[in-house]
Amino acid sequence: MRIFLVGFGVVGRSLAQLLLDNHRALYDTSALSPRLVGVVDRGGAAVSEYGLDATDLLAAKDESGTVAGVPVHGVTGVDAEQLIADSDADVVVEAAPSRIDAPAGAMNNIKTAFRTGKHVISVNKAPLAVAMPALLELADYNGVQFRYSGTVGGGTPMLALAQECARGDEVVRIRAILNGTTNFILSRMHELKSGFDSALAEAIDLGYAETDPSADIDGIDAATKVVILANLILGRRATLSDVAVEGIRGLATERIADAERGGNVLKLIGEIGDSLSVSPQMVPAGSPLDVPANLNAITLTLRSSGDVTLIGRGAGGVETATAVLRDMLDIWRTVGEIA
Amino acid sequence: MRIFLVGFGVVGRSLAQLLLDNHRALYDTSALSPRLVGVVDRGGAAVSEYGLDATDLLAAKDESGTVAGVPVHGVTGVDAEQLIADSDADVVVEAAPSRIDAPAGAMNNIKTAFRTGKHVISVNKAPLAVAMPALLELADYNGVQFRYSGTVGGGTPMLALAQECARGDEVVRIRAILNGTTNFILSRMHELKSGFDSALAEAIDLGYAETDPSADIDGIDAATKVVILANLILGRRATLSDVAVEGIRGLATERIADAERGGNVLKLIGEIGDSLSVSPQMVPAGSPLDVPANLNAITLTLRSSGDVTLIGRGAGGVETATAVLRDMLDIWRTVGEIA
Repeated sequence: MRIFLVGFGVVGRSLAQLLLDNHRALYDTSALSPRLVGVVDRGGAAVSEYGLDATDLLAAKDESGTVAGVPVHGVTGVDAEQLIADSDADVVVEAAPSRIDAPAGAMNNIKTAFRTGKHVISVNKAPLAVAMPALLELADYNGVQFRYSGTVGGGTPMLALAQECARGDEVVRIRAILNGTTNFILSRMHELKSGFDSALAEAIDLGYAETDPSADIDGIDAATKVVILANLILGRRATLSDVAVEGIRGLATERIADAERGGNVLKLIGEIGDSLSVSPQMVPAGSPLDVPANLNAITLTLRSSGDVTLIGRGAGGVETATAVLRDMLDIWRTVGEIA
Repeated sequence: MRIFLVGFGVVGRSLAQLLLDNHRALYDTSALSPRLVGVVDRGGAAVSEYGLDATDLLAAKDESGTVAGVPVHGVTGVDAEQLIADSDADVVVEAAPSRIDAPAGAMNNIKTAFRTGKHVISVNKAPLAVAMPALLELADYNGVQFRYSGTVGGGTPMLALAQECARGDEVVRIRAILNGTTNFILSRMHELKSGFDSALAEAIDLGYAETDPSADIDGIDAATKVVILANLILGRRATLSDVAVEGIRGLATERIADAERGGNVLKLIGEIGDSLSVSPQMVPAGSPLDVPANLNAITLTLRSSGDVTLIGRGAGGVETATAVLRDMLDIWRTVGEIA
């Protein structure tokens, strides 16, 4: 299986390492032999139809900050879309950072892949947030697969669980904690009685939050995941504009105290029911959605089987890379004829 | 898809009702048209190659206590194994109560089904507890499928989640609360400072425990589920005799108090690591395995993605029936040529 990888940040590098470490095991258990035939990052690209050496890619990134530093195969001044179009890859992995305010680059990469007959695995949420229904149709029209397990829950298979629950039962409602940074901040405000600003500063210190944490604390990151769940699990045709979003920026400590007085904790909840929303809500202390630190959790309410809750880390490079690997295995299983 | 159902207790009746309620939806979404061609219970059987009416079956059970009361198709003095062998069913659902001390009946039903080319869905744990490796081989040898999603977690898809996690990552350890009755008893001992006997009495009153609760409180029920997880997820060749089992019968209230002093709660934990065990263990209060009431929970420790925890109801007729339906859909998907 020939892979073209867009983005060589934390997830991209973890994926290269994961494929390197598991090359033999993947072949033995699944007859899958993934080969990186192209990698593009902000500084350039490395391309080889015979396959790039992951060790070379990681070394070049470490030394020169870009895969363009790979001997022989490195190139600069390239256009990602053109490279995708020209590549003989079977699968394009879109792993550039999710820029919800600027989804065009990733969107064009994905469309180009579809148009030139390539399956796509995206861990970039931006194109899904703004145009998921259209992208699903476009993949279908071009007869290729579009997978995005890593966009919700990182390595915790939230989408797969939700799909499994939807078979043989009906998902009537979803409530979920879909952003680890805000869960960490709210947990700190409860535990240490920290104010919002100091809890946020701690999250940034620990590397849980970006230096510009807007997408997290304004609820946008969680809202993109609400969109993905609503489309995939409940068959909605939703985009980000359909989600009523209230974040936790500047949340008053009184709201924390209010929640505690009623035996509750305040959580940033993404909700998919009659309507779609992200907002701070009270949940009973000790209930399944009361997860600590930067964990994520999803509760699916099923018509026959009641509430089912999955808890796990919601992000991380190697975690998200395992989700990409599951998507590869799914594509491989259904289109086994790929070389 | 022609179904032969063994056992018409809570799960069997729920399944008949579920198939009745979802007949149209199943055909529309999956082109699956399940037809009950035989049902056997302790009082007799009802058999029709053209399909039995679920309403008739439920009415006969209500009125006469056995499906043998179904007009025209009811028969008494039958031998389940012979009926299975003679049936033209595609799938046999073994849904008689799990009798770990007497697995022979269910075992013979399953073997007969395999031998006569029928797929098997078992919610009966007894045959799996004593001979899962052999049964898996026998199904394979006969070229039929053997599925048992409902044996662990009821309608909460614990096995499916664990299999999903095992793809693309490695499950290095499993810790789980696999019996709702004992979790209820331990929760009551913590919350109300009840003694073991009064907590057990309450569980029996509420219908959570059988009048003979031995399989629950002695840890045997949890141990059977440990066996199933160990074989399916970690590829062990285990049976019940490989599990070190310590139940909670007569548990002293001091052990509850001891746990609480350290900020912990006592839970009956099934563990699958280097060895297999069921025993009362302390887990930190408020951690994902600290689930209330009669819920079940499973924590999978993954090499790359850390701990993933799934929480849900672990039993119940309609819940378990949804698991059987998922198994039917899986069989249908992989052997679509069945009429």
